[in-house]
Amino acid sequence: MNFVEVSKNEGIATLTLCRGKVNALTGAVVDQITEALKKNEKDPDIRAVILTGKGPFFSFGFDVPEFLSYSKDEFSDYLKKFTGLLSYMFLYPKPIVAALNGHTMAGGCMLSLACDQRIMSAGRSKISLNEISFGSSVLAGSMEMLRACAGNANAMEILYSGAMYSAEQAQTFGLVDHVAQDQDLVEMSKKIAAELGKKPSAAFASIKMLLRKPIAAEFEKKEAVAIKEFVDIWYSEATWENLKKITIN
Amino acid sequence: MNFVEVSKNEGIATLTLCRGKVNALTGAVVDQITEALKKNEKDPDIRAVILTGKGPFFSFGFDVPEFLSYSKDEFSDYLKKFTGLLSYMFLYPKPIVAALNGHTMAGGCMLSLACDQRIMSAGRSKISLNEISFGSSVLAGSMEMLRACAGNANAMEILYSGAMYSAEQAQTFGLVDHVAQDQDLVEMSKKIAAELGKKPSAAFASIKMLLRKPIAAEFEKKEAVAIKEFVDIWYSEATWENLKKITIN
Amino acid sequence: MNFVEVSKNEGIATLTLCRGKVNALTGAVVDQITEALKKNEKDPDIRAVILTGKGPFFSFGFDVPEFLSYSKDEFSDYLKKFTGLLSYMFLYPKPIVAALNGHTMAGGCMLSLACDQRIMSAGRSKISLNEISFGSSVLAGSMEMLRACAGNANAMEILYSGAMYSAEQAQTFGLVDHVAQDQDLVEMSKKIAAELGKKPSAAFASIKMLLRKPIAAEFEKKEAVAIKEFVDIWYSEATWENLKKITIN
Repeated sequence: MNFVEVSKNEGIATLTLCRGKVNALTGAVVDQITEALKKNEKDPDIRAVILTGKGPFFSFGFDVPEFLSYSKDEFSDYLKKFTGLLSYMFLYPKPIVAALNGHTMAGGCMLSLACDQRIMSAGRSKISLNEISFGSSVLAGSMEMLRACAGNANAMEILYSGAMYSAEQAQTFGLVDHVAQDQDLVEMSKKIAAELGKKPSAAFASIKMLLRKPIAAEFEKKEAVAIKEFVDIWYSEATWENLKKITIN
Repeated sequence: MNFVEVSKNEGIATLTLCRGKVNALTGAVVDQITEALKKNEKDPDIRAVILTGKGPFFSFGFDVPEFLSYSKDEFSDYLKKFTGLLSYMFLYPKPIVAALNGHTMAGGCMLSLACDQRIMSAGRSKISLNEISFGSSVLAGSMEMLRACAGNANAMEILYSGAMYSAEQAQTFGLVDHVAQDQDLVEMSKKIAAELGKKPSAAFASIKMLLRKPIAAEFEKKEAVAIKEFVDIWYSEATWENLKKITIN
Repeated sequence: MNFVEVSKNEGIATLTLCRGKVNALTGAVVDQITEALKKNEKDPDIRAVILTGKGPFFSFGFDVPEFLSYSKDEFSDYLKKFTGLLSYMFLYPKPIVAALNGHTMAGGCMLSLACDQRIMSAGRSKISLNEISFGSSVLAGSMEMLRACAGNANAMEILYSGAMYSAEQAQTFGLVDHVAQDQDLVEMSKKIAAELGKKPSAAFASIKMLLRKPIAAEFEKKEAVAIKEFVDIWYSEATWENLKKITIN
């Protein structure tokens, strides 16, 4: 099954998540995003990447009903793969722009935090790191990526509340960089990707690494422990009861 | 002598500082706060803690006149105990809300920085890290806690100036999270504590540790050296002359 | 040749860059700033330092045409000297106020970031870390100094865009602390320097170190690697073509 459509135009590769109604994430989706990014990293014609979604969701986050059948070990392996993708995106040498076409929840929000810029549709779509609302923790990398874009105090507010924010509210927190009217999202995202893609590539990558490698060095040391704790909480009785209630269609 | 009144209601423990007119801090006060927090940490009925003060002060900070009779070693021991409390509060697994009922100065402000949220009475009360005004330094943990809530640039402004801020001004710096009209402080603090206390406890504690453990790991390495320098400056001739002029009643 | 004029008045030493029309930086300028700061560090009559420039520029940054004749090793040696000055200024025990009298570009902006406060003339002058516009990277220390004053998200915006900001725009980013009308710059800078200089000196230095040493400890570990990468990009064919087009008079 193909869950990531790739199109290329004027030096920009657009990766569009398309899995079911809400673009829920599984190991297969993570693999396909990784593979598409690796190809575009090597492609000398590609100067920037846009990551977006099809339908009313950018991404719902993890496909919780699917993961309910996983053993702890299988779920840990998925989390290693997922956090590996986040790290890889965070240090990707070319610009990645997240074009948030719709609801951007939990693991979907984490994906967007690993990008260089987040452009979000105004209107009814919500963005949220709502893990606490169903009793889940977050991950070491996503915590540091959130802190990097929103600052420590906003990160606390966002995570403790688990609130659903409109694009405009999210912008005041630094969670979103630009807000686009629905019909302008594609054009604005392309313009920003093209602008970043025009920069001298060695200088861009070097500056991005100076900005982000000190952050990544810290969270990569902590991720294995964070995953273990995340899994223990995920499989705890109280959280499991919440997870069983989640439906995605 | 009892310097910390404890009351419990609807899953929230309220700790009220009550020592003299200004709730000045000594080793005994620090011990009593620590003890009360430890009991409430273990109490399964308690979901959140409120720390507040009686009278026109939340806390004046250290009981300077009292400390003038201490040897360097005795004062260093007090500072180890005080910074130990700050670290313990900063990583406390349940939410702690500081209800700043009145003036919140120096070491009193540091106490509030170790909490998850600071709610302050509007009006005449001031909050300040005014150490520089009497020639004292600050501590490694309180520096990082300040940086975490106010950001680096505001931390510099607050500490270099030693200025006294109203609740409203402090909120623009991130030093205070919410401002309450005097008569609403108790109710607002209870509401916020209850809101945080309702969160799934394992997820809350895990997210709090992901936010704060990287910060604590850094300052804990530096605190012993910072205490030594703090003490050397405290006992220097110029600072000692200032300390002798401080009265607290 | 004398490229740094030094005057002293009421406990404040003013260092004025004066080299050609744009105060472009070379090894000799860096040496003279370092020497003047060292003398003033030891001088017990000096409580604060102001760093400013003569003419329409604070500083253009590196004297690019001059450096085109350098070998890689010679240029690396200059960068070691320059980053050594930035580190020294960042941890200077007395306050340093940057009075940005005019355009403040690239390496000139880095110099200002190592100061405690930046006061900038309103009007036509621009401030910029425009390295990316000619294909150059930045340095580890200047990255962390920028992050410390502007926050991570603004640092990204400033560096990815390479944009030229007015004093007012720069202030919204935290890149500049105060904006002065042209005729008021000297007076405002003196007032702020005097205010900081009045603080008890041991407490000021101790607080400054608590704020900045954790930051310096991190970037000093990374600077040698950052310089190597900076040099490799500087001498790359694409960047070299841009550098050859730069004129400074």
